[in-house]
Amino acid sequence: MTSVVILGAGNVATHLFKAFNKTDQISVIQWYNRSLNTIKSYSNKTEVIDDLTKLKVADLYILAVSDDAIKTFASMLPFENRLVVHTSGSVSLYDIHKKHKRGVFYPLQTFSKSADIDFANVPVCIEVLKKEDFQVLKKLAIAIGSPAKKVNSDQRKVLHLAAVFVNNFTNQLYRVAHEITESEGAEFDILKPLILETAKKVQDLSPYLAQTGPAKRNDKKTLKKHLKLLKDPHHKDIYNLLTSSIQGTHGRKKL
Amino acid sequence: MTSVVILGAGNVATHLFKAFNKTDQISVIQWYNRSLNTIKSYSNKTEVIDDLTKLKVADLYILAVSDDAIKTFASMLPFENRLVVHTSGSVSLYDIHKKHKRGVFYPLQTFSKSADIDFANVPVCIEVLKKEDFQVLKKLAIAIGSPAKKVNSDQRKVLHLAAVFVNNFTNQLYRVAHEITESEGAEFDILKPLILETAKKVQDLSPYLAQTGPAKRNDKKTLKKHLKLLKDPHHKDIYNLLTSSIQGTHGRKKL
Repeated sequence: MTSVVILGAGNVATHLFKAFNKTDQISVIQWYNRSLNTIKSYSNKTEVIDDLTKLKVADLYILAVSDDAIKTFASMLPFENRLVVHTSGSVSLYDIHKKHKRGVFYPLQTFSKSADIDFANVPVCIEVLKKEDFQVLKKLAIAIGSPAKKVNSDQRKVLHLAAVFVNNFTNQLYRVAHEITESEGAEFDILKPLILETAKKVQDLSPYLAQTGPAKRNDKKTLKKHLKLLKDPHHKDIYNLLTSSIQGTHGRKKL
Repeated sequence: MTSVVILGAGNVATHLFKAFNKTDQISVIQWYNRSLNTIKSYSNKTEVIDDLTKLKVADLYILAVSDDAIKTFASMLPFENRLVVHTSGSVSLYDIHKKHKRGVFYPLQTFSKSADIDFANVPVCIEVLKKEDFQVLKKLAIAIGSPAKKVNSDQRKVLHLAAVFVNNFTNQLYRVAHEITESEGAEFDILKPLILETAKKVQDLSPYLAQTGPAKRNDKKTLKKHLKLLKDPHHKDIYNLLTSSIQGTHGRKKL
């Protein structure tokens, strides 16, 4: 049984708490937050505290706080030589004060407050300085069903960056599609199966092999038609840049 | 029972044939292709022909040929006053010769030769000039389980354009993520659950509400870190343009 203290009460903290709570291999012995209000509804399931001096001894302290707060927070913890991890994709492991055993437990997924998360779909990226700490974190990830991976700092950082492309930027393309369809009174809903299929396709096929469409086959007639249809100059910019990106990847001339 | 002749042997033609073949509400009485070789393996299921003069009378002729071939092909059909539709997202209905009853039967989905398609996930966009023709096409779509929609020319064209954003361009963002992760020896596979979840999220939530990340919350520190990590100037361009697109949508200042 691994004893854990969670610090912070955002989406990641809350989803981790719920996942930990489902398995008897993990015991969340305390949950700290600056404001008790946010977490007091969980007080029947764990000890909720708002005072760092009350922290108990645990196998692991998870700092699930905002990126900017990690450094200060870690240095404020009133103990040393215990395993302290943060959950951020972009913050250095070395932002955790060196008095601690340090690690990162970065769940690579998009979290929202409401939707339930199955950690089978959340690869946790684990980074540590010492081998024995890896075992603690790996065991934790396995207990919640995550396909955890050991990554180094550079890998974690590029994964976080790549996540922005496949999540935030992709979602913005959905948004642009929403704007384009609405401008003619067409239903964005009609695109939803295509959105899903596009994501499913690259589960088994590389994005390179999955590519199709007018940019890849250099279908100038269609490219021209599309640019003519686009009224918003900003949409045109995206169309031009991503078309030339596809043509660069697939060895066509630029638009 | 609707009698159908399919013309062409690409992905759309083949998937339509297979779907039609599964229901007894549709009978594919002939399949035409310029080259018999491509379709002769289906000769136990329908009559395969390579000679337009042999075309039989049917309720519907589906021109599932390349965009550029539609116009010529439709004018070459040796009959008139029968329902002829094409399957293209971007070609005008009026490219079909006016001697025919004209329509469009545009399945909005990404098709690959190998993967089986469930038409429950393929909205067919139907466009016609006469009401009675709509009924024929609607019946056909329902018979294969498609959530068909009546659209006009302008709507079909913007749907086709929007499909490029959510399919080709999104897939290119996956490709860029693949390049970025590989550059540090990180596994692209780790991103796959996120890719899927991002697509799932907008099935119920608007892309506007689904947005998260450093661009939306104007987290300048992370944006700066990311731009520093990106080595390829082309990746930087995409990062900058889509970041400013998100900030435009969500009312932040430009990067």
